[in-house]
Amino acid sequence: MSGKPVCIADFEEYARTFLPKSVYDYYRSGADDQETLAENVAAFSRWQLYPRVLRDVSVLDLSTSVLGHRVSMPVCVAATAMQRMAHADGETATARACQAVGTGMMLSSWATSSLEEVAAAAPGGLRWLQLYVYKDRAVTEGLVRRAERAGYRGIFLTADTPYLGRRIADVRNRFRLPPHLRLKNFSSSALAFSPGKDFGEDSGLAVYVAEAIDASVSWDDIRWLRALTSLPIVLKGILRADDAKEAVKIGVNGILVSNHGARQLDGVPATIDALPDIVEAVEGKVEVFLDGGVRKGTDVLKALALGARAVFIGRPLLWGLAYQGEEGAKEVLQMLKEEFRLAMALTGCRRVEEVDRTLIRRHRGLSRI
Amino acid sequence: MSGKPVCIADFEEYARTFLPKSVYDYYRSGADDQETLAENVAAFSRWQLYPRVLRDVSVLDLSTSVLGHRVSMPVCVAATAMQRMAHADGETATARACQAVGTGMMLSSWATSSLEEVAAAAPGGLRWLQLYVYKDRAVTEGLVRRAERAGYRGIFLTADTPYLGRRIADVRNRFRLPPHLRLKNFSSSALAFSPGKDFGEDSGLAVYVAEAIDASVSWDDIRWLRALTSLPIVLKGILRADDAKEAVKIGVNGILVSNHGARQLDGVPATIDALPDIVEAVEGKVEVFLDGGVRKGTDVLKALALGARAVFIGRPLLWGLAYQGEEGAKEVLQMLKEEFRLAMALTGCRRVEEVDRTLIRRHRGLSRI
Amino acid sequence: MSGKPVCIADFEEYARTFLPKSVYDYYRSGADDQETLAENVAAFSRWQLYPRVLRDVSVLDLSTSVLGHRVSMPVCVAATAMQRMAHADGETATARACQAVGTGMMLSSWATSSLEEVAAAAPGGLRWLQLYVYKDRAVTEGLVRRAERAGYRGIFLTADTPYLGRRIADVRNRFRLPPHLRLKNFSSSALAFSPGKDFGEDSGLAVYVAEAIDASVSWDDIRWLRALTSLPIVLKGILRADDAKEAVKIGVNGILVSNHGARQLDGVPATIDALPDIVEAVEGKVEVFLDGGVRKGTDVLKALALGARAVFIGRPLLWGLAYQGEEGAKEVLQMLKEEFRLAMALTGCRRVEEVDRTLIRRHRGLSRI
Amino acid sequence: MSGKPVCIADFEEYARTFLPKSVYDYYRSGADDQETLAENVAAFSRWQLYPRVLRDVSVLDLSTSVLGHRVSMPVCVAATAMQRMAHADGETATARACQAVGTGMMLSSWATSSLEEVAAAAPGGLRWLQLYVYKDRAVTEGLVRRAERAGYRGIFLTADTPYLGRRIADVRNRFRLPPHLRLKNFSSSALAFSPGKDFGEDSGLAVYVAEAIDASVSWDDIRWLRALTSLPIVLKGILRADDAKEAVKIGVNGILVSNHGARQLDGVPATIDALPDIVEAVEGKVEVFLDGGVRKGTDVLKALALGARAVFIGRPLLWGLAYQGEEGAKEVLQMLKEEFRLAMALTGCRRVEEVDRTLIRRHRGLSRI
Repeated sequence: MSGKPVCIADFEEYARTFLPKSVYDYYRSGADDQETLAENVAAFSRWQLYPRVLRDVSVLDLSTSVLGHRVSMPVCVAATAMQRMAHADGETATARACQAVGTGMMLSSWATSSLEEVAAAAPGGLRWLQLYVYKDRAVTEGLVRRAERAGYRGIFLTADTPYLGRRIADVRNRFRLPPHLRLKNFSSSALAFSPGKDFGEDSGLAVYVAEAIDASVSWDDIRWLRALTSLPIVLKGILRADDAKEAVKIGVNGILVSNHGARQLDGVPATIDALPDIVEAVEGKVEVFLDGGVRKGTDVLKALALGARAVFIGRPLLWGLAYQGEEGAKEVLQMLKEEFRLAMALTGCRRVEEVDRTLIRRHRGLSRI
Repeated sequence: MSGKPVCIADFEEYARTFLPKSVYDYYRSGADDQETLAENVAAFSRWQLYPRVLRDVSVLDLSTSVLGHRVSMPVCVAATAMQRMAHADGETATARACQAVGTGMMLSSWATSSLEEVAAAAPGGLRWLQLYVYKDRAVTEGLVRRAERAGYRGIFLTADTPYLGRRIADVRNRFRLPPHLRLKNFSSSALAFSPGKDFGEDSGLAVYVAEAIDASVSWDDIRWLRALTSLPIVLKGILRADDAKEAVKIGVNGILVSNHGARQLDGVPATIDALPDIVEAVEGKVEVFLDGGVRKGTDVLKALALGARAVFIGRPLLWGLAYQGEEGAKEVLQMLKEEFRLAMALTGCRRVEEVDRTLIRRHRGLSRI
Repeated sequence: MSGKPVCIADFEEYARTFLPKSVYDYYRSGADDQETLAENVAAFSRWQLYPRVLRDVSVLDLSTSVLGHRVSMPVCVAATAMQRMAHADGETATARACQAVGTGMMLSSWATSSLEEVAAAAPGGLRWLQLYVYKDRAVTEGLVRRAERAGYRGIFLTADTPYLGRRIADVRNRFRLPPHLRLKNFSSSALAFSPGKDFGEDSGLAVYVAEAIDASVSWDDIRWLRALTSLPIVLKGILRADDAKEAVKIGVNGILVSNHGARQLDGVPATIDALPDIVEAVEGKVEVFLDGGVRKGTDVLKALALGARAVFIGRPLLWGLAYQGEEGAKEVLQMLKEEFRLAMALTGCRRVEEVDRTLIRRHRGLSRI
Repeated sequence: MSGKPVCIADFEEYARTFLPKSVYDYYRSGADDQETLAENVAAFSRWQLYPRVLRDVSVLDLSTSVLGHRVSMPVCVAATAMQRMAHADGETATARACQAVGTGMMLSSWATSSLEEVAAAAPGGLRWLQLYVYKDRAVTEGLVRRAERAGYRGIFLTADTPYLGRRIADVRNRFRLPPHLRLKNFSSSALAFSPGKDFGEDSGLAVYVAEAIDASVSWDDIRWLRALTSLPIVLKGILRADDAKEAVKIGVNGILVSNHGARQLDGVPATIDALPDIVEAVEGKVEVFLDGGVRKGTDVLKALALGARAVFIGRPLLWGLAYQGEEGAKEVLQMLKEEFRLAMALTGCRRVEEVDRTLIRRHRGLSRI
């Protein structure tokens, strides 16, 4: 890349060059052979758009609502851990960028900024807290209570991580937090993933999860959480229709179709391919979101056409942070917004309500050898 | 390439080497990640021909009619903008080449020759005018009236460009017209895309479109145009059956199945893949044409077998112009004609009326990894 | 390749290195973009074998009959033109190799040995004559009469060549016969494709065909030929079921499913993919053969499993000739025989009659990007 | 690879670097063009996992039983010949590694250790003997009797090798055993594949098989073997439903869906693709196993989801032996166990009985060119 970034790939190219290898690897990697990592992106290309023409697209409204709150576009920020590795301002820069652009931010429990710092950095912003179920339920409950107090508008509970997926590069790099950082939502050194600890030959984070996160997490815990708070709850990491139905039955408010950025189990489907069945299964009773592989405006439109209410982006935001902190994060969000605006206009959609299933079809072509 | 060009790729190879990069990029590029750009060509290969043998093909008639006018072959020239960037004679060379070969030329409104100059260059030629709907309807109406007066035989209204698609290379190159050229159909400096203007960091043409072209263009404008002129009207840029039906209802005379050379919205289907549904939808009530990806005689035959009346070629003509002006353009057209003649003969077709749907099937094969 | 060839690819590698470029190109090339050339080979890989086990394959009989004559295996030699370009002994070497191995040879009308020379070289061999319909029918009739007198056992009439396909390399190379060679079946210099003639900038052979071969050839000519001779007639170059049915109705004795080694019209299906429909269409009334892409023993088995009585090989034989004349041709035939023997044994087939449709299925897998 | 191996590919990379070429080639190669070799691995990627979440996976039981004997995981060791070429301890190292990990070992008849040596090396281990039917039935019977006496728990009869498949590299390398090794289960020099013998220009092993193994082997021999011993019998090398049914009828105890590591007939399906039909055909009457292409924990899970009771690994074990003998073999087994454990946990399976068909679907996506 020379000159200003003109597509999301430009931001990643910058990050690849300027971030320390172990940091870039941590952000970039998928599990095992990384087949699903490639799939998440490639699968979008296997869905094709059938644009409507001549619909007066001089005035476009890109806004929608997520769990009852207005956002300027159906693109929000997904939880990604330890953002201060990408830029000194980390999650607070992300929060300010989201607030500026008018969209929502999902904060990782494993942030290198406390949830209160993040709230303070962008007091007018829309925020949700991503949550793990810790072996010590009091830890989890404490996070919920603090999120309620700090004005977070919902909980995204990660359902797909009883153990951490195996990310080869992190194992080879023996991934640790840099010495000056810790998980700021936790007071104890053990829970804060402090870099001093001996994690042996493995990815430090895999060891952390095995020690702290509860692999016994089950639907009962969702019921427990449902009873614990009146905040909206979204289940993050659903890929099956039956699990989605179960979640609806228990009373969650949303489903995030996600494969954890392809970082948990390799060989699972791309999220855009898994989306239609989930949308059908929940019968409109809760909002359905998607993350994984969203890299451009047409990806957003495709997800909406298949029934998603909004999408969440992870890695692109990190590349924006790495590029220029708050400003870079904002550029990424604005670029996606402009790309989405053009995709809306060129398919004849004036409001997100006009995006419908007829806009999209699975590619019928076959490749030759 | 050494020696005379023997296939269309040879002309492009020449152009790639000898044109200024920003000009070659402008002609060559597709939108965004250019997936549809590759698809337009690749999709032809996924349709296979099933030749008839032993049909006496000693005498072949390649001619057909387009909107009531005879052409020597079902291959016409599509509107491409600013042809004087390819060769000093630009659109007038194209016009003379088309006249010599006996086929029709669609002139871009954004020509670097005026429509009257083009008419004068090849007075016996068959010509149509490609049209955009300008914010100032008087501009559009003026073009129609001049086309009528100059003997143009129809209007191809571009329906897919309320905004210009994002062509990455043009953004990086900050594409502008060379200093000695302007859009010759317009008298005002603003509408003429004059190179002096400040277009910021973007593609100059994208800025031009945002300022001059009306994004509110709708079916009402087609009705307006229908009432305005008795010239045949073809809607250019249709990819959906419902839009095609609507166009027929309004009374257009033809549909050009087109994705604007893959330059508007990336991720839309290849035109050859979109064609069959459109052909079925219009039930023979209007003529259906195709552009996009046509690079050889068998492509023409495939489009006809799937129901197109004729195809339009864009980039190949530009490479011919770049190679040797009028002579190069003529060589390109003649090469396609000879290739089409051979494809007709080797599939047992003596007249274009004999080209039928049994000649073609979607490839059934599957590739291995 | 170092050491003795152990697969057909080794022979081609040798030929590629040692033959003059224009000769190698002539033998190797397909038409236009050579998509079908690649397909002919690739398509075999998209059919998979389902072997039977435990069938006592200690004794195998690979023989079959072709048009009533016994051959030692269902692999015969296809007509390829001008074999003396590959080796000084040309077609006579091929004839001796076929006789030694016990299989049949189809001699090209465009041989660089006369059909009588070929017969004399291997008097005990099984031979058929490949035939074109010349503008001067007396030429064609003369060839048939000579074939009858010289003990040829059938006529393979080429149905797919009213004009020669466009082979780019031959055009670039301005392909001509080497000065010391001519088509030995013809006495006149014009019909003998003598190298002295001026063929302009084109492939000399394309010019020859345009001048000498009759593009008006039709089903009537098949009726004429049927009446002319009592030799078995096989129609060569059929890819459609309706053409196959027509041929049966007229009374031909066999169909050769062929796309002329992918040298006529690019974009037609691989022969192995076209075979099943033809087999179904002829309902067992005539023998069905295949050429195109056969490179190994499992290819032969696949063709038989889909209903072919035998296959014909073209290029592999030429690579064998180039490698070591008669000896090389014999090695190629014996290698294919041994590979076919192993394929029979490992699928549990003791006689070719035991090869059935359950042995083969189209690959169901899909590739990832 | 630098540092400790973290995936099976790391072990192979080590072996590729450190083993003599002809040994590495012998272990690595598939038959002919090695299409099936690639397919065996690639096909796993065309099946995708649909994980269940929130199932309390804090306690996992990976054990299962194979032919009535408990194993710590559904991953056993397949017979691979001549393991002392990989490491001086050869099969005895493998036996000790299997015993340590608590899984079963299938010993090749062509071991470079005698079956008694192997039994003595790991007296508490679970072992089966792989068997060929020799021309001299007394040889085969002798092996069965010795296996009974030495505590082997079953016979895996190879059904797919009446002749040896053609492995090009072995032919080029003229593969022989190193001078210090022989097949230790045989006393005669001829049957021991002793390196002194003259095998001509071919793979020595192919010659050995042609001379010693009975190509007349048939279902009658299975009946003979069934009558000969009360040990469980598994038929190895089945790819068709009808053969599987026949085997069940005769009274075998298991079916090993196998294409002999893609070393016999190229062009047969990947084993994971062949598995479902076999599972359906046997209707639960016998245990169904799979080998071929298993390289990671998710592969094991996929095979179980499609109905396999357990899988067998061949080459990965050899790479482990090459890396570090018994210790390396153990590392390979433990790595697969940990990967399988994670795959179970991340798909919500606590016991192998919970692995069901809903966890897996064939990939629906299509690739673009």
